[in-house]
Amino acid sequence: MHHFDADLPSEIDRVLRDFLHRAGEPIRRTEPTFGPAVDALSDFVLGGGKRLRPTFAWWGWRGAGGDPDSEEAEGVLRAVASLELIQACALVHDDVIDSSDSRRGSPTVHVAFAARHTQGRWLGSAESFGRAAAVLIGDLALAWADDMFAECGLPAPALLSARPAWRAMRTEVLAGQYLDVHTQATGDASAEAALRVDRLKTAAYTVQRPLHLGAALAGAEQPLVDALLEFGGDIGVAFQLRDDLLGVFGDPSVTGKPAGDDLREGKRTLLLALGLAYAEQQGRDGERKVIADAVGDSRLTDAEVDDVRQALVDVGAVAEVERRIEEMTAGALASLQRAALAEPAAQRLAELADRATRRTS
Amino acid sequence: MHHFDADLPSEIDRVLRDFLHRAGEPIRRTEPTFGPAVDALSDFVLGGGKRLRPTFAWWGWRGAGGDPDSEEAEGVLRAVASLELIQACALVHDDVIDSSDSRRGSPTVHVAFAARHTQGRWLGSAESFGRAAAVLIGDLALAWADDMFAECGLPAPALLSARPAWRAMRTEVLAGQYLDVHTQATGDASAEAALRVDRLKTAAYTVQRPLHLGAALAGAEQPLVDALLEFGGDIGVAFQLRDDLLGVFGDPSVTGKPAGDDLREGKRTLLLALGLAYAEQQGRDGERKVIADAVGDSRLTDAEVDDVRQALVDVGAVAEVERRIEEMTAGALASLQRAALAEPAAQRLAELADRATRRTS
Repeated sequence: MHHFDADLPSEIDRVLRDFLHRAGEPIRRTEPTFGPAVDALSDFVLGGGKRLRPTFAWWGWRGAGGDPDSEEAEGVLRAVASLELIQACALVHDDVIDSSDSRRGSPTVHVAFAARHTQGRWLGSAESFGRAAAVLIGDLALAWADDMFAECGLPAPALLSARPAWRAMRTEVLAGQYLDVHTQATGDASAEAALRVDRLKTAAYTVQRPLHLGAALAGAEQPLVDALLEFGGDIGVAFQLRDDLLGVFGDPSVTGKPAGDDLREGKRTLLLALGLAYAEQQGRDGERKVIADAVGDSRLTDAEVDDVRQALVDVGAVAEVERRIEEMTAGALASLQRAALAEPAAQRLAELADRATRRTS
Repeated sequence: MHHFDADLPSEIDRVLRDFLHRAGEPIRRTEPTFGPAVDALSDFVLGGGKRLRPTFAWWGWRGAGGDPDSEEAEGVLRAVASLELIQACALVHDDVIDSSDSRRGSPTVHVAFAARHTQGRWLGSAESFGRAAAVLIGDLALAWADDMFAECGLPAPALLSARPAWRAMRTEVLAGQYLDVHTQATGDASAEAALRVDRLKTAAYTVQRPLHLGAALAGAEQPLVDALLEFGGDIGVAFQLRDDLLGVFGDPSVTGKPAGDDLREGKRTLLLALGLAYAEQQGRDGERKVIADAVGDSRLTDAEVDDVRQALVDVGAVAEVERRIEEMTAGALASLQRAALAEPAAQRLAELADRATRRTS
């Protein structure tokens, strides 16, 4: 197997490390005070993440005929790795928006910079300083994503044909984040709203557009792109539904997150929307109340989390979400066959689909 | 005179309006909830601003031989107009960072979205919702700036040669904003810190890099670029120093801002830094205290603003800032002559320099 295929995450890390070093060098010289901000972004990007988006993009390229032994392969690695910088912007800004304290087991960027302020006994509000730094560091990630993509070294026609995917991806993730915040604010607890967020934030941004981007870089024709978009739409939503189930039912020792944390944070998922709707339809007022009261209750006990689990099982919401995951995974695999991708991409995407929708963490 | 040269701001507005319409169309269809966010960005971009950055970029292009009658002219208009979208991101995020309530006589974006929340009697904090929306709308502006630039229609080699300017500009403005926030937090009142912020936030971002970008789009050689960077560095700082003087001494009926508002907001300028340093050197403790106490005092009266003005004049800070503006303007005009730009660019840039440094509003 080609070593790019075999060890994709390390190759992604390599080109990211390289880019971050080259991008940071001139501004560190011009303005050393900005160094800690550049460090924070580098540490964030290199410090974790499953490299999911670059992986889908890479297999989109390979599936459309991209050759890992070609001259372009290194440029493609850089182009797909730049998706991690978009993701860094999304997460750093998301943490500001949600006032989250920790991410990947470390303090979030705004919390870390607030701590610098406190330690330095600086003037004004530490919280405001931390937020300002995180807004600017997220902006830097987004600007650098574009730099890394545009300067990846691929020929201009390849880059130009990937622009529609690149353009759609960034607008769609922002629309998804806005929709998410808006849905929480309006208290829209419908299954339809939850699915719309899933389609934009997870399916489009995490799977469809990366696949689209990769395939476009290889000069794929529209029918292939369409089949990949269908595959990605189904897999992306299935992935999110699995995530929702794990957020309530996951084993903390495997997921690394406290049991029921999604409930405490008030995340509006399809699982909860179905739970509420089914309880209502079945006239089970007790279950409806257990679920409704739990969402967003930051002091929810483990026993109460257990009650919510039971209610979600009893009204049939869990079974329905599992059924949809099955159905969408099957649909996705059918689209994948229709796409008639070059191997080993077809097999690797099928494996990714399987892992994403059956995972336990 | 060519109509692009004669009526640049309207041409900039035309291509911005066009881009915003085309960029907004697909996402409005996909997710109508996002419509108000797209509207807010469009209104912000089309609702005001002096088009300073596109103007400098345009004249950089013209000065390096760009022909307004050529096929490329329309693409160059789009490329330089995209700077207004970077500026929209900078301002919308700056207003979040500074918690500013109004901008260009209207509520800031975060305040306007907080008001939507309040009017809709939505759940949670209106302030948090407003901030979330403004962070995402600023991100959208930055992503769209890159889309508008990369898809302006110019040939790939021209775009590629403009990438160094494009890349530096976005990183430098973020470094300048971070340095500004950092300087306020550490209470660094030195002239050196104030000048470093001016060099990054105003000179590099507003004048040097736009000129550099325009010249690069015309395929300028390095000596010409260097001369423009020298011109832009001097004019950019001089422009900011004039702004600082107007912020304290400007006539409210002309500037549109209450007298002394820069003082109340605690803006750390070279003018104030020199005022404090000179008072100290001259042993004028009364003047030093008047200036030091005024900075950041949101309840400063008009009489107290008058005292600060008198103190800044008496210790010689105003004369020194005026002297520097003169000196830098003269230096800038010398660099401009060395650059031997194509006319009418040389004359128009000299006029811009003159207007920027002698203006009263």
